[in-house]
Amino acid sequence: MIDVSSSKNNESNDNLTDEFKVTPWQVEGKIDYNKLIERFGTQPITQSILDKVKKATGELHPLLKLQYFFSHRDFDWILDKYQEHENFYLYTGRGPSGMVHMGHLMPWMFTKYLQDKFGSNLLFQLTDDEKFLYAQTRSMEEIRLYTYENILDIIATGFDSKKTRIVVDTKHIQYLYPLASEIAKRITFSTAKSVFGFSNSTNVGMIGFPPIQAAPCFLPSVIEGKPTPVLIPAAIDQDPYWRMTRDVAERMGYYKPSQIHSKFLPGLGMSGKMSSSKPETAIFTSDEPEEIEKKVSAAFTGGQATVGLQRLLGGNAIGCPVFWYLRYFFDTERESDERLLKCKSGNLLCGECKSDLAKGSKSFITNFKKRREKAKDVIANFMYDGQSYGK
Amino acid sequence: MIDVSSSKNNESNDNLTDEFKVTPWQVEGKIDYNKLIERFGTQPITQSILDKVKKATGELHPLLKLQYFFSHRDFDWILDKYQEHENFYLYTGRGPSGMVHMGHLMPWMFTKYLQDKFGSNLLFQLTDDEKFLYAQTRSMEEIRLYTYENILDIIATGFDSKKTRIVVDTKHIQYLYPLASEIAKRITFSTAKSVFGFSNSTNVGMIGFPPIQAAPCFLPSVIEGKPTPVLIPAAIDQDPYWRMTRDVAERMGYYKPSQIHSKFLPGLGMSGKMSSSKPETAIFTSDEPEEIEKKVSAAFTGGQATVGLQRLLGGNAIGCPVFWYLRYFFDTERESDERLLKCKSGNLLCGECKSDLAKGSKSFITNFKKRREKAKDVIANFMYDGQSYGK
Repeated sequence: MIDVSSSKNNESNDNLTDEFKVTPWQVEGKIDYNKLIERFGTQPITQSILDKVKKATGELHPLLKLQYFFSHRDFDWILDKYQEHENFYLYTGRGPSGMVHMGHLMPWMFTKYLQDKFGSNLLFQLTDDEKFLYAQTRSMEEIRLYTYENILDIIATGFDSKKTRIVVDTKHIQYLYPLASEIAKRITFSTAKSVFGFSNSTNVGMIGFPPIQAAPCFLPSVIEGKPTPVLIPAAIDQDPYWRMTRDVAERMGYYKPSQIHSKFLPGLGMSGKMSSSKPETAIFTSDEPEEIEKKVSAAFTGGQATVGLQRLLGGNAIGCPVFWYLRYFFDTERESDERLLKCKSGNLLCGECKSDLAKGSKSFITNFKKRREKAKDVIANFMYDGQSYGK
Repeated sequence: MIDVSSSKNNESNDNLTDEFKVTPWQVEGKIDYNKLIERFGTQPITQSILDKVKKATGELHPLLKLQYFFSHRDFDWILDKYQEHENFYLYTGRGPSGMVHMGHLMPWMFTKYLQDKFGSNLLFQLTDDEKFLYAQTRSMEEIRLYTYENILDIIATGFDSKKTRIVVDTKHIQYLYPLASEIAKRITFSTAKSVFGFSNSTNVGMIGFPPIQAAPCFLPSVIEGKPTPVLIPAAIDQDPYWRMTRDVAERMGYYKPSQIHSKFLPGLGMSGKMSSSKPETAIFTSDEPEEIEKKVSAAFTGGQATVGLQRLLGGNAIGCPVFWYLRYFFDTERESDERLLKCKSGNLLCGECKSDLAKGSKSFITNFKKRREKAKDVIANFMYDGQSYGK
């Protein structure tokens, strides 16, 4: 495999300044992922960890191999626990502020891989309260609509209905609130302010919210009746929540939650996080084939201004979102490496890559939509009810 | 009736400084209730309001007449609404941080009078979350125990089971949380800080809590499916919650909650609020007759140092907690006025008043305990369940 994954030469390669911002609510600028590891105090995923995963699962998921999941906290500890026959729960989540796009699906598909390989129970939280509290103009009715649509996407991802439960904050608050109160009691405003950047103008709902997102870290221990390891696969912008949670875990008699952090999928038109708020740069699971065609066709690429120049100079695959989309989603490793070389040497035109991406995406979304339709009949099987799950 | 109720000459008469503190979590110093009205920006209960109450109910409750309930916000508006055949809900609450004493029962008995006279539905909130979050050392198990015991006291007070529902925050959070989120979104940290005195060291649970106490103000509107007036009888230390709630009510499409504020029942040994944390100065509903006897016998009084001096100079009934206990709880208006005159003129010794108070309290608590026992069988009838209540 050609190494294209270190931050020096991936999609952020042209960023020479430190000017990027990553919080749970804002991802801005060109991300230097190595700097982010330093800034957040997490650990890079090393070869020795990848070896452990391969030993446990028999194969390495492409998103690990490609270092899309690039950073962690105590992932090695979770793997050691697993080797000692102590199972872990998976916990991930989604803020239902819009429809789901392919960028959202990547960590979910990876989470499904973890569930399949490690046989883990999964809690999937929908933070509808947070999305309501955060946006001044968003109504609860709007959020409720997205919550329903997002649940279909979660189920369509293919999680095991026996091992997966969805927790919607406003719907399941009675299961979260006692744990959240225990957590909240241990976090001062000054800590929350420094971790999340709260200010005097932040509403008290947002200030009170982080313990609600922390609570599912400990719910498995409540379900199992004993301290239970939890692994959180999520984009790294969510790390502040887990940093805070880890600080209180042991005082509450639980394990610190482990994490494995992903990068952000670049949008089709810019660097940074693929964004629901810029719908033209994201392929949604609800998009019609014509929309996908149009978006891919209008995508930004790493190509030269003319065909002639492209043949002469070659393209900048590393700075091209179409390349990354194909690499993460549709190409095999070998196909992707070949694509990179062909592009660099001027033997590949942007139209070909776009055509591959459009074809792949249309087929993927068409299939996904069918699973989404079927999901409508089985929602109840996936909803947390405080019973019939776990042990 | 002898006027003993203005703050100039009631239990706070010897307080010439402004040094008292009233927050939902702290009542300190000798309270000047007139100053408190100014400080909080509430309204005094005027004769014209008392006339309206008398017109509506046919009689004036002693706690109104004696100005134990002395301040309000929009109580007159509620009475006008009632005259226009628009019914109101009552809402009051209790923080279950300990056992219930007679000081707690006074506003509850008054609330029962309002329920009986106006035929109002009542929501009774137990803020177990707040009491857990506030005290560093208090466990949820301890709070749960007090919550159960306090529920027995609430039911024993005699509320109408058809018209009364108890809401325990951690038990009924699913009904409160959506409303609380709507409220929380509209309150910034800087507002909460100035209303409640929060600081950097306040835990985020306490900062997130006020909307939970505000939510029952609007629950009646949810139950009735239309904006519904609410009257809150409560001690004035809770006013900051309602001030905050009133600020957001109209933006949410609801009426501002009305309030009627009580003073604090003096303890048997000091001025200020009767306090669970000083058990020797309060008569609890769980006290045995011997304990009551002992507490009353050790009570501070307004008497002189010796019998001789008492006969010569007379006692200070106005500064005497035993007098106030008798006046608020057991004496008729006429008996109390006579007691005042006899004490002032030296014709009454402290032993006699203490004997009256011990006798009255023992008999009252004995009866109350019987009702408390019976309450154990009907708890379920009183618990809010989101259904079968209201309309």
